[in-house]
Amino acid sequence: MLSKMSCGVKFGDVLRRGKAISQSATKHSRFQHASAAVEPNAPSVKTEVPGPNTKNLIQETSKIQSAQAVALFCDFEKSQGNYLVDADENVLLDCFQQISSLPLGYNHPDLLETCNTAAAQSAMINRPAMAMFPNRDFPALIDKTLLKVAPRGLGQVITMACGSCSNENAFKSVFFWYMKKKRGVELPPLGDPAYESCMRNQPPGAPKLSILSFEGAFHGRTLGALSTTHSKPIHKIDVPSFDWPIAPFPRLKYPLEEFERENAAEEARCLEVAEDLVEQWKTKAPVAGLIIEPVQAEGGDFHASGDYFRKLKKMTERQGIAFICDEVQTGMAVTGRWWAHEHFEMEKSPDVVTFAKKMLTGGYYFSDEIRWDIGYRVFNTWMGDPVKLHLLEKTLKVVNRDNLVEQAGKTGKHLIGGLKQLEKLHPGVANGSRGLGTFSAIDILGEGIRDKVHKQLLQKGVLAGVCGAATMRFRPCLLFTPTHADMLVDNLDQAIRDVKKS
Amino acid sequence: MLSKMSCGVKFGDVLRRGKAISQSATKHSRFQHASAAVEPNAPSVKTEVPGPNTKNLIQETSKIQSAQAVALFCDFEKSQGNYLVDADENVLLDCFQQISSLPLGYNHPDLLETCNTAAAQSAMINRPAMAMFPNRDFPALIDKTLLKVAPRGLGQVITMACGSCSNENAFKSVFFWYMKKKRGVELPPLGDPAYESCMRNQPPGAPKLSILSFEGAFHGRTLGALSTTHSKPIHKIDVPSFDWPIAPFPRLKYPLEEFERENAAEEARCLEVAEDLVEQWKTKAPVAGLIIEPVQAEGGDFHASGDYFRKLKKMTERQGIAFICDEVQTGMAVTGRWWAHEHFEMEKSPDVVTFAKKMLTGGYYFSDEIRWDIGYRVFNTWMGDPVKLHLLEKTLKVVNRDNLVEQAGKTGKHLIGGLKQLEKLHPGVANGSRGLGTFSAIDILGEGIRDKVHKQLLQKGVLAGVCGAATMRFRPCLLFTPTHADMLVDNLDQAIRDVKKS
Repeated sequence: MLSKMSCGVKFGDVLRRGKAISQSATKHSRFQHASAAVEPNAPSVKTEVPGPNTKNLIQETSKIQSAQAVALFCDFEKSQGNYLVDADENVLLDCFQQISSLPLGYNHPDLLETCNTAAAQSAMINRPAMAMFPNRDFPALIDKTLLKVAPRGLGQVITMACGSCSNENAFKSVFFWYMKKKRGVELPPLGDPAYESCMRNQPPGAPKLSILSFEGAFHGRTLGALSTTHSKPIHKIDVPSFDWPIAPFPRLKYPLEEFERENAAEEARCLEVAEDLVEQWKTKAPVAGLIIEPVQAEGGDFHASGDYFRKLKKMTERQGIAFICDEVQTGMAVTGRWWAHEHFEMEKSPDVVTFAKKMLTGGYYFSDEIRWDIGYRVFNTWMGDPVKLHLLEKTLKVVNRDNLVEQAGKTGKHLIGGLKQLEKLHPGVANGSRGLGTFSAIDILGEGIRDKVHKQLLQKGVLAGVCGAATMRFRPCLLFTPTHADMLVDNLDQAIRDVKKS
Repeated sequence: MLSKMSCGVKFGDVLRRGKAISQSATKHSRFQHASAAVEPNAPSVKTEVPGPNTKNLIQETSKIQSAQAVALFCDFEKSQGNYLVDADENVLLDCFQQISSLPLGYNHPDLLETCNTAAAQSAMINRPAMAMFPNRDFPALIDKTLLKVAPRGLGQVITMACGSCSNENAFKSVFFWYMKKKRGVELPPLGDPAYESCMRNQPPGAPKLSILSFEGAFHGRTLGALSTTHSKPIHKIDVPSFDWPIAPFPRLKYPLEEFERENAAEEARCLEVAEDLVEQWKTKAPVAGLIIEPVQAEGGDFHASGDYFRKLKKMTERQGIAFICDEVQTGMAVTGRWWAHEHFEMEKSPDVVTFAKKMLTGGYYFSDEIRWDIGYRVFNTWMGDPVKLHLLEKTLKVVNRDNLVEQAGKTGKHLIGGLKQLEKLHPGVANGSRGLGTFSAIDILGEGIRDKVHKQLLQKGVLAGVCGAATMRFRPCLLFTPTHADMLVDNLDQAIRDVKKS
């Protein structure tokens, strides 16, 4: 049914006008997947977006909670692959994919198969307390899933329900490690004042330690994670916070090749401040570790160079603090490598790598050195959800079978090439195209222009995300091909033209 | 297959010896469920528990994480109703049910049906970012599930992935409410120093506010939730904490009828200290709300009277702070009422009620007054998981159809009657039987005796939980009948006898 839907907008305009943004907008047969159900050929928009059904459902939902964040109500059963069908039957090319959280788009037939296995159904209705009563397939399931894609050197892994919990518990693991180093043993001897004081939320049992984070970072919204999040005031206002140090994250100028010297100086400055903070905090609340995103995503898709990350890692080694890499949004192949930090070619892996979103389950990898051994130190009832591990097992098979890591890399190059053409077509408006794989972004300059372009693009049937003050971000699923990229660029060009005219 | 398994232990011994702990251990036909698949008639133990397969799997798991908290590896596909089958094919009467988190036991046929619906499967493979792109059935689904069992007067509700996140976000909501009351508007005017200071984790944007909690409480293990958890040092040691006030929770003496005066005095003392703390903290970090469990579960199954809770609620009204009731473990019918706090007959409901575990989804209810309206203040990518709402919908139908709230109340009375008989049979060892519905506990006194009895009970094929220093807790699912209760009491009696002899 979906494949019969007609295209409500015209494509190829940019190509004709702008001298071929891409080499070819027609066929990229290397990336056709025999297994994927047929998705629509193009978006199809029937109403203003959001349409009347979404608006009615927002009103309905507002009775029980604030519904101000709702963008669209969706009809997931009708959606397919890269195309999201909304409650008004608009068919949208989805370049945002549930805030970057679906690896294989909508209704992937292989995942549907998994839903019908006895193992997945048992996990669904007999959800275990996984750290106390795991199913007998648990070690084998971890072996087939998380260990298959473990970052180099990180053989330890634990599952969690979501990204915030992954980061919160990563912090705890790092605090345990830091105190163990200081003491020489994992726990203080019985009778130590730590046992009694921790119960009163006081040192020495609840020590004054901190996690260093970065301006513009996003690591979640629970109280510990939120103390390391600095992307928007609306996330933080009115919430008490740990007083933890915050370093600047490089703000690079684009195009990179024109600002090499300035960007190198900016990164050197940021590195220096970070190490200074670690030194300064030693008397106040020693830094046990830092947490950083390979690309600052919510903050505005800010990138830094491999050189910066390698030097930052060396700094943590020099200072004896842990390096936590938050790959919640960047992980799972989208950047053209399994983990985005692989692009940086660091000599040693981060000490901890956290994940969620496209990995379907939350959790974190950690080194043997970070590992703790005493039970119940990191624990909760569910410890994630084994259903997600079954879905992940199938997802990994599909990613491997269909070469989706490679595809993300190639499609990303193609997409960023297209975005760079837009910069030429719209100087002073389109700027700073950047990305790793399909994890990409462009700035739309001018007061309020970004939001208008974003909205206009949606009217054309293309759903993108925004982040920071002036950035549009693209977070397609792994089925996104150069053909889809061309549609995105083409419509974005037209949306900018429309906004300029208005 | 399971129903053919033979019984490895003898029943009815207590009844013969102890003059009928229960009125009848044979038939309770009122509570036979036509729909439930046939479960075993009794436990069946083939190996020492844990057996060799569990031990091997623990070793296997230890390669990738600390597996010290693992009690048993399970064979969930073979488990049924009240009976858990472990990796060594031991069939155990499960009175703990995945840390109190399964409402309908194992492999309930009605839930299996739900797994095969298009709606549940779509939710499973198209997991939405629920606060931004909900499925079009979202308001209807909430209406059929969470609103159906909302605490009186609490018409607002939000979903979360787990109990810790529910409490963390409940705290945030209470902070928002407190600051809104102070300011008169939800957010400060643009340009207010709060916007800039919150980004640096500093007041006034990140205000010095606190949540009052109670000695012995358990509210989760993320950094905010952990600052209100005070049940065991192993949860807290080495983790930085918010310096928030902690009041004593009443420690009642049993049997209640013998200690009326002492217990009333204890509750009065605790109320006084709580209000004093609210007063004292006003200059340091004003208390925006308190969080309390209807029964302190992890801490040792500590109860307080309805009078205590009613007076505590009045205190919060007098002081202008919010009353958060943590029903993560006590909610969903187990106490013989839907929510345990209903037993207290408070004039007004708590301002916030948090849930997870047996409710299958995390989340919290809140009053119109607590509600915030500006988007993205409480938000995360997944905001729970709609699959759990589909399972909850079916669970509520089963609970209603099979009168499981009433059954929990009646079975609980029967069970606690049995436990009280054990006190008579084992004076000085068995003590303090207490509970609401089947949410029940007994203390086993004497250095190390509780743990020995717990282990011995497991060898007889009965799985129970422990909490606090000397308590055994029982958290069966809602299919638990007086017949199961008799088996539990009978085996517990025998386990105590065995340990006394040894």
